Amino acid sequence: MRQSTLFTKTRREAPKDEVAKNAQLLIRAGYIHKEMAGVYDFLPLGLRTLNKIIGVIREEMNAIGGQEILMSSLQRKELWETTDRWDDSKIDNWFKVDLKHDSEPDGSRSKEVGLAFTHEEPITNMMEQFIPSYKDLPKYVYQFQTKFRNEKRAKSGIMRTREFIMKDMYSFSRDEEQFREFYEQCAKAYQKIFSRVGLGDKTFRTFASGGVFSKFSDEFQTVCDAGEDTIYIDRKKNIAVNKEVCTDEVLADLGLSRKDLEEAKAIEVGNIFPLSTRFSKTLLNRFKDEAGSEANPYMGSYGIGPARLMGTIVEVLSDDKGIVWPREVAPFPVHLVSIAHGNKDIEAEADHLYDSLKENGIEALYDDRDVRAGEKFADADLIGIPTHIVISEKTVAGGAFEVVDRATGTASMIPESSIIQHLKK
Amino acid sequence: MRQSTLFTKTRREAPKDEVAKNAQLLIRAGYIHKEMAGVYDFLPLGLRTLNKIIGVIREEMNAIGGQEILMSSLQRKELWETTDRWDDSKIDNWFKVDLKHDSEPDGSRSKEVGLAFTHEEPITNMMEQFIPSYKDLPKYVYQFQTKFRNEKRAKSGIMRTREFIMKDMYSFSRDEEQFREFYEQCAKAYQKIFSRVGLGDKTFRTFASGGVFSKFSDEFQTVCDAGEDTIYIDRKKNIAVNKEVCTDEVLADLGLSRKDLEEAKAIEVGNIFPLSTRFSKTLLNRFKDEAGSEANPYMGSYGIGPARLMGTIVEVLSDDKGIVWPREVAPFPVHLVSIAHGNKDIEAEADHLYDSLKENGIEALYDDRDVRAGEKFADADLIGIPTHIVISEKTVAGGAFEVVDRATGTASMIPESSIIQHLKK
Repeated sequence: MRQSTLFTKTRREAPKDEVAKNAQLLIRAGYIHKEMAGVYDFLPLGLRTLNKIIGVIREEMNAIGGQEILMSSLQRKELWETTDRWDDSKIDNWFKVDLKHDSEPDGSRSKEVGLAFTHEEPITNMMEQFIPSYKDLPKYVYQFQTKFRNEKRAKSGIMRTREFIMKDMYSFSRDEEQFREFYEQCAKAYQKIFSRVGLGDKTFRTFASGGVFSKFSDEFQTVCDAGEDTIYIDRKKNIAVNKEVCTDEVLADLGLSRKDLEEAKAIEVGNIFPLSTRFSKTLLNRFKDEAGSEANPYMGSYGIGPARLMGTIVEVLSDDKGIVWPREVAPFPVHLVSIAHGNKDIEAEADHLYDSLKENGIEALYDDRDVRAGEKFADADLIGIPTHIVISEKTVAGGAFEVVDRATGTASMIPESSIIQHLKK
Repeated sequence: MRQSTLFTKTRREAPKDEVAKNAQLLIRAGYIHKEMAGVYDFLPLGLRTLNKIIGVIREEMNAIGGQEILMSSLQRKELWETTDRWDDSKIDNWFKVDLKHDSEPDGSRSKEVGLAFTHEEPITNMMEQFIPSYKDLPKYVYQFQTKFRNEKRAKSGIMRTREFIMKDMYSFSRDEEQFREFYEQCAKAYQKIFSRVGLGDKTFRTFASGGVFSKFSDEFQTVCDAGEDTIYIDRKKNIAVNKEVCTDEVLADLGLSRKDLEEAKAIEVGNIFPLSTRFSKTLLNRFKDEAGSEANPYMGSYGIGPARLMGTIVEVLSDDKGIVWPREVAPFPVHLVSIAHGNKDIEAEADHLYDSLKENGIEALYDDRDVRAGEKFADADLIGIPTHIVISEKTVAGGAFEVVDRATGTASMIPESSIIQHLKK
């Protein structure tokens, strides 16, 4: 994409009311726009990055047999009353609205509906018709869907918002053994995802509270001072325990010793929950088992917020010049910076390379703007695309391009003839 | 995808409370699930189809210079009060919710927010910072974003719902001339979209009311008895007029004669609106023109609902056996139907073809289920993938595959060696 056509512009200062580092940098670089506290819009570069992250998650969910669907936000009150999660005293972040006209023919349904903050209820209800028999199990369904949460705190930029896309997966299995097998598969898929988006070495599978569903669950926590959680890490064993459940009994169960643990602030970037038959029993999701008796599927739920992940990457990997994206999630893998100063030959060389990148399937943001070199370099560092290619009179005279690694600042001259090969590595 | 793993199943009957043909067929074939009146979930086949339609629209919007963004649903009341579109007496299908806690530091903002039914206000407001000068114009931004509309009527299946993804584009131009040029480009792009999704010959650019924004606008209306609108078509001139504005004066203006017009029911599948400076003036979106004076950009808005388009395709193209998808929007271009009756050789042949399709980048739904041939054929007709490939003892003995066109029922035997080439045509 030619940067001269991109409608966003970088800015020197973030809005004064923006306290989170991730949102400050993302606003300055033109990735997002703040609509109100806890509500952000995604601009072209931001949406591209978000979609790259979604793409990584989708690939890994498909690889373990997930089938993608898209549920509605508007939700019937009745389902949530059945599981006792409708009342505001139970769930304190509901958004609820009234339907102006209820066109159900039987006229019996409530006019009040909710904006789903999660989807266990409607998915458990819907899946009942599709799993009549144990032969239909296991099944795994997931979605990238907008959740609404009436959050009291909204100070963490795009990491905790009132409206956000969530990847939520739900598993249905015939028994606990079949459930556990998938649960562990999904844990591995999550670790792959966090590695691919550049957070692998800072993200720990973390033993945590199961909430109202089960005794324990697993979180994936990324070490970062901006995090809201405190975890204790055993680096040798490569696991962690959330402070909330870090009792002597739990440590003994897990075979951990307090002296090996390191305390750290962390951001919860994912979680996986055993749900047992809590929802399937209450919502009457039943299948016929091998003996012909009715049974309720064992369920699990598995969440990742792509925007929270995007915010976490910014918090963890940025430096004093701006954002540093890992290649897999960058809005473009390559930022082509042309320093032509009006020299038509240099412009033609840059155009030529841009076309050649396109032909070779390498997406590039092409800074063809008529602005000072210093401004271009500063913008490129702020935007944070991992590889910069600089074209100038100097590089053209040398028959090479200057390739700069955003993360390290390392520059190397790559001959024109081998630039494509170099970038495809 | 192997059909044996797909979690949805077809059903003989649609739910009794479902009156719209599009929803009846889509539910029976396993594309969608009804959450409540006017609210549907997209199941794997349905989401694939919806995404194919979205892909076609995205390509055509990018081709005319559109830049994709994603705005929020939650919207500040203040912006909509500015343009006098907040009050329920002005806009009768708002969903409004209260924020539980308003964390704005200045504490001055209202706690009531809206769920956007469209995005002129927030986009006009946001764009102000990005277009300081006439040099920054024109700009076109668009999104695929979930709209919420508190509809009184919700009886048209997925064609009129309370929650739906809409492609909405907004153009910002320096003057009326620059605006008009893009408006006509967009009209052409819309016609391309409707052709690509199989509705080209039934869809007419239709002169319509401009509502409160301008005197006139253009709708794209697809002729269909299930439509809510009435239009008058001049087939020779390939344009139409909405009944609402079909006065003698309008006909004279357009050079149309009442005797050449044919009345038809139609579905509005798209619309494009001149907005003039109505929003940019009110919301103080200003740029510096060439003379250095402040001016307001000329705007237009351009909508298409991908799910409404999907419903329209079903209404228009289905037959008594089920759905008939055009190739560009089908969930898969090919449905591979294996009639093995337990014969391992046939199964192996079918597996082999399925792998070979994958290797050649041809997506296929592969009916590898252990069910009767009649059930497989009926399901394939109901699901409506445009090309069926049948493998059976008979076809294998003949060294060929039977290729059936879903729309016409025409069958032809294609030799094994040329099947890939045949499908790539």
